[in-house]
Amino acid sequence: MKNLNISIAGLGNVGSDLIKTIINNNVFIKNKSDLSINVIGISAKNFLKKRSFNIKSYNWFDNPKDLLKLKDLNVFVELIGEEKGISYELVKLALKKKINVITANKALLAKNGLELFEIAEKNNVLLLYEAAVAGGIPIIKTLKNNIFLNKIKKISGILNGTTNYILTTMYKDNLSFNKVLSMAKNKGYTSESEADLDIGGLDSAHKLTLLTTICFGSKINFSNNEITGIENVQILDIINAEKLGFKIKLISEAYIFNDEIYCVTGPKFITNSNPLANVDGVLNAIKIETDQLKSLFLAGEGAGGKATASSILSDLLEISSNTNILSLGYKNKNLINFKKFDTLHIESAFYLRIMVKDETGVLSKITGFFKDFNISIEKIFQLPDNNKMQTSIPIVIVTHSIKKNILLMTIDKIENQRFVLEKINIIPID
Amino acid sequence: MKNLNISIAGLGNVGSDLIKTIINNNVFIKNKSDLSINVIGISAKNFLKKRSFNIKSYNWFDNPKDLLKLKDLNVFVELIGEEKGISYELVKLALKKKINVITANKALLAKNGLELFEIAEKNNVLLLYEAAVAGGIPIIKTLKNNIFLNKIKKISGILNGTTNYILTTMYKDNLSFNKVLSMAKNKGYTSESEADLDIGGLDSAHKLTLLTTICFGSKINFSNNEITGIENVQILDIINAEKLGFKIKLISEAYIFNDEIYCVTGPKFITNSNPLANVDGVLNAIKIETDQLKSLFLAGEGAGGKATASSILSDLLEISSNTNILSLGYKNKNLINFKKFDTLHIESAFYLRIMVKDETGVLSKITGFFKDFNISIEKIFQLPDNNKMQTSIPIVIVTHSIKKNILLMTIDKIENQRFVLEKINIIPID
Repeated sequence: MKNLNISIAGLGNVGSDLIKTIINNNVFIKNKSDLSINVIGISAKNFLKKRSFNIKSYNWFDNPKDLLKLKDLNVFVELIGEEKGISYELVKLALKKKINVITANKALLAKNGLELFEIAEKNNVLLLYEAAVAGGIPIIKTLKNNIFLNKIKKISGILNGTTNYILTTMYKDNLSFNKVLSMAKNKGYTSESEADLDIGGLDSAHKLTLLTTICFGSKINFSNNEITGIENVQILDIINAEKLGFKIKLISEAYIFNDEIYCVTGPKFITNSNPLANVDGVLNAIKIETDQLKSLFLAGEGAGGKATASSILSDLLEISSNTNILSLGYKNKNLINFKKFDTLHIESAFYLRIMVKDETGVLSKITGFFKDFNISIEKIFQLPDNNKMQTSIPIVIVTHSIKKNILLMTIDKIENQRFVLEKINIIPID
Repeated sequence: MKNLNISIAGLGNVGSDLIKTIINNNVFIKNKSDLSINVIGISAKNFLKKRSFNIKSYNWFDNPKDLLKLKDLNVFVELIGEEKGISYELVKLALKKKINVITANKALLAKNGLELFEIAEKNNVLLLYEAAVAGGIPIIKTLKNNIFLNKIKKISGILNGTTNYILTTMYKDNLSFNKVLSMAKNKGYTSESEADLDIGGLDSAHKLTLLTTICFGSKINFSNNEITGIENVQILDIINAEKLGFKIKLISEAYIFNDEIYCVTGPKFITNSNPLANVDGVLNAIKIETDQLKSLFLAGEGAGGKATASSILSDLLEISSNTNILSLGYKNKNLINFKKFDTLHIESAFYLRIMVKDETGVLSKITGFFKDFNISIEKIFQLPDNNKMQTSIPIVIVTHSIKKNILLMTIDKIENQRFVLEKINIIPID
């Protein structure tokens, strides 16, 4: 029987569900894999908070740093979730003390991973983070342990459940962004403090940063990300997408192009034949293309205590398996400092929604600008907007593939016209 | 740098693509994972056959047994694919010589795995088989290395690309089963010798046998499978399914119920909201439900040289990683000899197609039998069959959930009526 002594800092949903699973599945885990997981210390902010397990059965510490002083500690589990502060201090201290660390903290690793993974490697311990990306989907191990000898061409995914819930529900229930956002808060999918990270795409970008490192061996560098949130997506855009055979999803995608890294999170039109289009609600999903595999697709719960606890258990199993596979797959010194690809040079088809005054001649003026810039239009339609009092109407344009910088110049011209009433909404098409 | 010396028996698509990948990605693999994969011997039936790589660069052996005598051999890769015979002999001999084995041979393992995995464990070597199930999808490692500490509740999947291609194409192109089967042969998806294994569901059942062992710790026992092929599925059934909001898929599924194993492969109605319903063409897919995860879904290429080679590479990485995880996850002595669940006791809704003479009173007679047996009907419709000259017409019935044995008694009565012209087609509904 292998013994794994662990201590846990942070006892929210994930921490509590982890402890409950370890209690409930204790015998099962011993029988299945000859592994005994022993929680030898716990710590959280508030001792008095009502929790879903009996806190008195455990060794409680007010100061989480005391968790690292425990004798025979094998693994420290960080579930506090601060981007810096105490989470950073604890993880760093643990690694320096040659204690393996498991964390669900994507922000911490995306921002400070470069330093922390080096400390882990230097001290010959693992810093694992399956729970930090896509909740219960074992995407880190899939990339790092399973298909690691593939050359990854492209990874794209839905990495944030809250925004996917919002986009799905806006369409299904015909509700506004703000209405659905408060529903998401009520359901506990996001909180006042997390909402900006979710909606703004930052949470997804944190996760994508970790994925690009494993996929392409890129040095962890959060500033490689280009990020657009979903705050400007309106029901009207989602309905238009549907008419055109697409779904709008907040997509995080990355690939290497001419030795530069393309690492973008933003709303995107996804064609219905792409499995990402059918991922609804709070689910997460990832599509991988490699030199060997045209498509490998994974989907599952992107959040929630139980699902995230599953990923922490998988990290515990990895630590107990004595594998020589490193935390990031690569040696730190082999990671590459890719230059960021300038997305102005991207070629793509685009969806545009232009809100204009309901006047004659507007359509012809707009198409004139596109002609001037030599942009070929695939589809154009003008619809009355039933939600408004007809003071403004939307013109919807789908372009053929075009360089983004040329499109932006055109958009700039059009936005300067007095008949254009709002900033033009631009969404790339997959 | 770790060295992995391998020899390969069998140089069809998979063997050839494996060698090409090892050549092409040689430097990449060394850089990425400090691993040097060296092919130190090859063997196949026909030396003279034209192949996609330069056979002269390799150490050729006419007798594959000589591959096992090579000095410093770490891994033997069996890609001959016989259910017994030479494949069995080679794998057994290699394991006894304490050589790790990788095979893509599901039939061999489903039928002889009990013995072979014991020999592997006794000799402290690995017998790996990622390529044997679902081609390029790393489902074995997902279950065995990633979510192994989950309690698996149910696994269901599309494990055979040929049959999925046939079912998809019959519907999309409105073609008969036989027509599409010959298209599948022309495209190389199946061959004269493999077709029966594919169509009859045996190939899927071989794969399901391996999955149930990893999922539930069941002793490998192919006779636990209940298997129905797709040969009786007609376009009409697929069209009816579509009308009712379903797809017909050849589903392999397994779970433990009252300490008995349910392990069934057969055509099934899958509701459109289940991601398995949207898996088209030659793709494979697997849906897993556990105590921690409501749903984890994987989809990708189920066959093809490159995809399968990817899985073999992942096994090579696992061997080189020195993990202490066993070939099946479990120690052989811990595997459980589950009793087979008698599917007559299953409760399910069913789709029935009854071909009858176009006479008045038939519908009322049929519904009368259902009333007699207390089976509640959810939907019933009678349609003219445009493909026939109206001598027979189909009556389609969707039942509410009902015990299968009671349904079969009813079916038996109905089939004895003179107005029933064919065996009634029964398909369970998910």
